[in-house]
Amino acid sequence: MDVLTARTDTGDPAYLAFAFIRIKGSPDVHTLGLTFGDRVAVATQSFAAGPGTVLTLHQIKLLDGTLQDSLPSIDLDSYFHAPELDTLYVENVNRWVRRSVPGTNQELCSVVPSQFRHHNMDRLPLRFSPREKIKSAQKARTLLPTRIAKDSVRLGSHTVSYTVDASRDLNGVGLVYFASYFSFADTALLAYWEKLSRPLESFLARRVIDNRMCYFSNADPGTVLSISVTGYRYPASMPDDGELIDIRITDRHTGELLALNSQHVFAR
Amino acid sequence: MDVLTARTDTGDPAYLAFAFIRIKGSPDVHTLGLTFGDRVAVATQSFAAGPGTVLTLHQIKLLDGTLQDSLPSIDLDSYFHAPELDTLYVENVNRWVRRSVPGTNQELCSVVPSQFRHHNMDRLPLRFSPREKIKSAQKARTLLPTRIAKDSVRLGSHTVSYTVDASRDLNGVGLVYFASYFSFADTALLAYWEKLSRPLESFLARRVIDNRMCYFSNADPGTVLSISVTGYRYPASMPDDGELIDIRITDRHTGELLALNSQHVFAR
Repeated sequence: MDVLTARTDTGDPAYLAFAFIRIKGSPDVHTLGLTFGDRVAVATQSFAAGPGTVLTLHQIKLLDGTLQDSLPSIDLDSYFHAPELDTLYVENVNRWVRRSVPGTNQELCSVVPSQFRHHNMDRLPLRFSPREKIKSAQKARTLLPTRIAKDSVRLGSHTVSYTVDASRDLNGVGLVYFASYFSFADTALLAYWEKLSRPLESFLARRVIDNRMCYFSNADPGTVLSISVTGYRYPASMPDDGELIDIRITDRHTGELLALNSQHVFAR
Repeated sequence: MDVLTARTDTGDPAYLAFAFIRIKGSPDVHTLGLTFGDRVAVATQSFAAGPGTVLTLHQIKLLDGTLQDSLPSIDLDSYFHAPELDTLYVENVNRWVRRSVPGTNQELCSVVPSQFRHHNMDRLPLRFSPREKIKSAQKARTLLPTRIAKDSVRLGSHTVSYTVDASRDLNGVGLVYFASYFSFADTALLAYWEKLSRPLESFLARRVIDNRMCYFSNADPGTVLSISVTGYRYPASMPDDGELIDIRITDRHTGELLALNSQHVFAR
């Protein structure tokens, strides 16, 4: 089947939508550190993580001339439990969805196109299933450990409103584009930065070594979002471990949770 | 040479920046009509258009099963003077630039990296040179014919302010991304649409059959832009030929012209 033109059994378009994304690097290798002309090697593997859910893992290394162009295939235990400092780890969870009512992006529902076959994909051992972490984040309304407020120093918080822009936030099928959620979060992060009187230069030079986004709902263009940002730092008694950012994107009118984002940021 | 990591003779980064983009289609084939899963065939050719200027032409056709995957090479006369209705024509003009002062995006200046060789590129016959049209647009401060105000009906105009966003408008080297200029223009176009009390659905369903952007200056993040939109329609005595949109992007503080955009739009 062609995943980009998939249809439900009743002939409606079906989309393999993002449910979760994590981009994990290190102070040495992080997304904002990449630039034009960098050469990278990528290893990618997809796994069936339930009947209508696909987990895709990428490992990305900067090529420095000594490294071979191809990487060994992904080992799940090292991927999740023994990450290396010179590697960027990108984890995507995608689920099949369809519109519940034509013409609106609200209340997308799960569907598995009957042509979709996951039997020839590698099966994901249950201990690596993303399901539990998504469920518990939704329940706790944060991707950070729930003890964070007790264990750390609260640096500040800030909430902005943002209207979903029909001219730049939608993808080719009229849904809010998955990458736009990162723009929403980063726009609010910039406002938080300015509220704490930090210079723009330090925002541009920040290193985001871990960035997670959990998607719960899409939205129609024109929807007013409320995006709240809270920053935490571990107590001064501990070695500098950067700043943890907790971002919550909700529909300002209904209060519905659209997405959660957490970022581990080193500011310069 | 690697165009993405080019340096000037003094070792500073050099960028092959966009100076002009035109995307020309028809009511049948236009960018907003493309979606996930569409298969296209592309023919591309680059030409030397002066010592530090490159013109790149693309012809794009939707594959419908009967069409071969490859297109014949580009013929300049047909490209510019006999376009076909089933083809999308994308024209890029790029010029080598460098920062005049490190740390700012203002006043980029021309530079040709000495490693850059254009002798093995096809030379562009002078009659197709983009130079004159860029110069006359800059002088007239519009990409539309200067008689447009006389020959047509003015539908309305609207000006918005927009602050260049450090979190979403920059590219990997800290310059305002060329595609962000289209977002700036379209954000203002949406505001114009709303001012004329047109429904959001008609904005989303619009067909942009010609879209030109002429770049004159970059900008630092935090710069406040003034984006003005004026719409024209030919007199009712003529057959419906859509709407011509004239967009001007300036620095609100200094008045400097950053870019001109024109769009030929059919609203539904």
